[in-house]
Amino acid sequence: MTMLKLPGLIDPHVHLRDPGAIHKEDWHSGTCAALAGGFTVVLDMPNNTPPIVDAETLAAKQRAARAKAVCDYGIHFGAGADNAEIAASLAPQCSGLKMYLDQTFGPLRLDDLQSLVAHMQHFPQDVPILCHAEGRTIAAAIFVAELADRSVHICHVSRKDEIELIRAAKEKGIRVTCEVTPHHLFLTRDDCGDTNHRGIGAGKCEVRPMLASRADVEALRANLDIVDCFATDHAPHTLAEKESATAPPGYPGLETALSLYLELVREGILTLDDVIARCYENPRKIFNVPAQDETWIEVDVDAEWIARGAKMHTRAKWTPFEGRAMCGQVTRVVLRGQTVFENDCVLAKPASGKNIRPISQGEKK
Amino acid sequence: MTMLKLPGLIDPHVHLRDPGAIHKEDWHSGTCAALAGGFTVVLDMPNNTPPIVDAETLAAKQRAARAKAVCDYGIHFGAGADNAEIAASLAPQCSGLKMYLDQTFGPLRLDDLQSLVAHMQHFPQDVPILCHAEGRTIAAAIFVAELADRSVHICHVSRKDEIELIRAAKEKGIRVTCEVTPHHLFLTRDDCGDTNHRGIGAGKCEVRPMLASRADVEALRANLDIVDCFATDHAPHTLAEKESATAPPGYPGLETALSLYLELVREGILTLDDVIARCYENPRKIFNVPAQDETWIEVDVDAEWIARGAKMHTRAKWTPFEGRAMCGQVTRVVLRGQTVFENDCVLAKPASGKNIRPISQGEKK
Repeated sequence: MTMLKLPGLIDPHVHLRDPGAIHKEDWHSGTCAALAGGFTVVLDMPNNTPPIVDAETLAAKQRAARAKAVCDYGIHFGAGADNAEIAASLAPQCSGLKMYLDQTFGPLRLDDLQSLVAHMQHFPQDVPILCHAEGRTIAAAIFVAELADRSVHICHVSRKDEIELIRAAKEKGIRVTCEVTPHHLFLTRDDCGDTNHRGIGAGKCEVRPMLASRADVEALRANLDIVDCFATDHAPHTLAEKESATAPPGYPGLETALSLYLELVREGILTLDDVIARCYENPRKIFNVPAQDETWIEVDVDAEWIARGAKMHTRAKWTPFEGRAMCGQVTRVVLRGQTVFENDCVLAKPASGKNIRPISQGEKK
Repeated sequence: MTMLKLPGLIDPHVHLRDPGAIHKEDWHSGTCAALAGGFTVVLDMPNNTPPIVDAETLAAKQRAARAKAVCDYGIHFGAGADNAEIAASLAPQCSGLKMYLDQTFGPLRLDDLQSLVAHMQHFPQDVPILCHAEGRTIAAAIFVAELADRSVHICHVSRKDEIELIRAAKEKGIRVTCEVTPHHLFLTRDDCGDTNHRGIGAGKCEVRPMLASRADVEALRANLDIVDCFATDHAPHTLAEKESATAPPGYPGLETALSLYLELVREGILTLDDVIARCYENPRKIFNVPAQDETWIEVDVDAEWIARGAKMHTRAKWTPFEGRAMCGQVTRVVLRGQTVFENDCVLAKPASGKNIRPISQGEKK
């Protein structure tokens, strides 16, 4: 048994669905899943119901998180068509500004140039802007950021032409960072067959960006040197929702991610240090995550297990990796000197997680 | 009567519809309209039926133009999803490569990042790439061109956010040129009312990019210092087509353009030299148009007339400026020492116009 002691991992992209859809997940179940996966910081996306686009909705999410979270967290603010000034004013309370520039789950879609420019110009340069952008929209987002003399973070890059564009931009010295999800590194659209034939099933397979081709997966893997972060895009929906005729897009991912990242090490594609850079050092730098004192995770890298949604801490209780043989398991998580996860049990109490952007005004600490 | 002698004007963006839709216009009627408008060079767009996307379709257009044209011309090649190498190989025979990146008339629409990158990378840097791009797509096009270390020409800029983006790009030293049409400088969407109330009428009003707001028109006018070219986007359809339930987008524009450009001088927004820069010097430089010896136009700048589609040389026989009081009229056009237009009559014979990209191989001169 090889035990590793690693820093508490940071996931810059999760959807904990609270407030608004706590039948899918809430700040407690979602942060329990985070601890089980080895994450001690998660940064949560704003496409709630209602979306997090003003002081009131932000405060409601801060209250929900403060009451329930068992790991630390940041809250990404949502860019709307008309809230660039509000977003800028609330930036100190947020881990980033999320812009939905292409099709996704929820109402926060922006289509126009004007609002893209407005947010890039107004939002403080020391707080990240994250874009859901695909294809040409990635080029537009990076260019508008460049004109605004700021960096931009491209979420869940999934295709060959996209990662190659980002490489070309980085090689030109243009300020852009990016993340890749485990599912885009391990699954292709060919995995979306029916469940009787070991496929994921059409509804469950729905995710944005969609799973891509084998060539796309290979391109992501070939360009991991310019991938700054891994991000799960943990996006739980219930099994019933995913098996319905109108399945919403999104996969839970927090509890399978680290095993998959370690699989890249076993495959010889990355070193363990490369994984730590993408799950801890780079997200810490990009998102200004404060240090967590006396915080670490312990991982049995040889532990073999089978991915089973029913056994997971996420309320979604399913995984696109159902039945997959996994290797490497989190055995213990220590947060601020306290063992908060051990023997597959969360020991931390709700409200023990801290907001990485504690606010003297607005949110009572 | 004030007579002006000006260089023969260059219109970098016309649709002469030949081959494929000569009931709307052909190389003879279209170049007659050009001469009547003071243009001695027109650069023709590739969204024909079939589109100009390979050697065969290019040769067919070269033959049609050679047989009928009464002014000089260049032929823009069409970017398709899979013809980047073909386009590059045929570049010496073309005045530019046109990429349709947003909704327009015809089948040449490109949506993906991959083909945008492929054309920007493959097409020779000394031949322009022109993009129909609106909104965010303009940002994408300029950025991909920047990564490919080449310039790009943005067609018919129509909105405030677009022209301001292009200004910001130019101020950063990024290589981009742009054109504006007379209709986007003089008409707004408020002019699209029904014809009984002096509106253009819904079908006739269809054009891409659509007419915009008064604020957009004012922004274009306020940023004319960074507009490189005027371009008519002369896009004739018959009156019956434009008055049908499925009216195709596009306006004829060659015969009203110069009067409108001169109106900008009368309004004090531009000098006459500014107009000449945008109708002759800049398009000549950007599109490498060879000098036309002993070529000029004579313009009676005080001549008043009423725009009447029925009287025009274009086969379309209508104009969105129907009934408008115009001032300034072309009285004579001299091309290579020959008077080719006078007293509203075209004197040049078909086949007297020359291709600005004469080809020793392929096209017989």
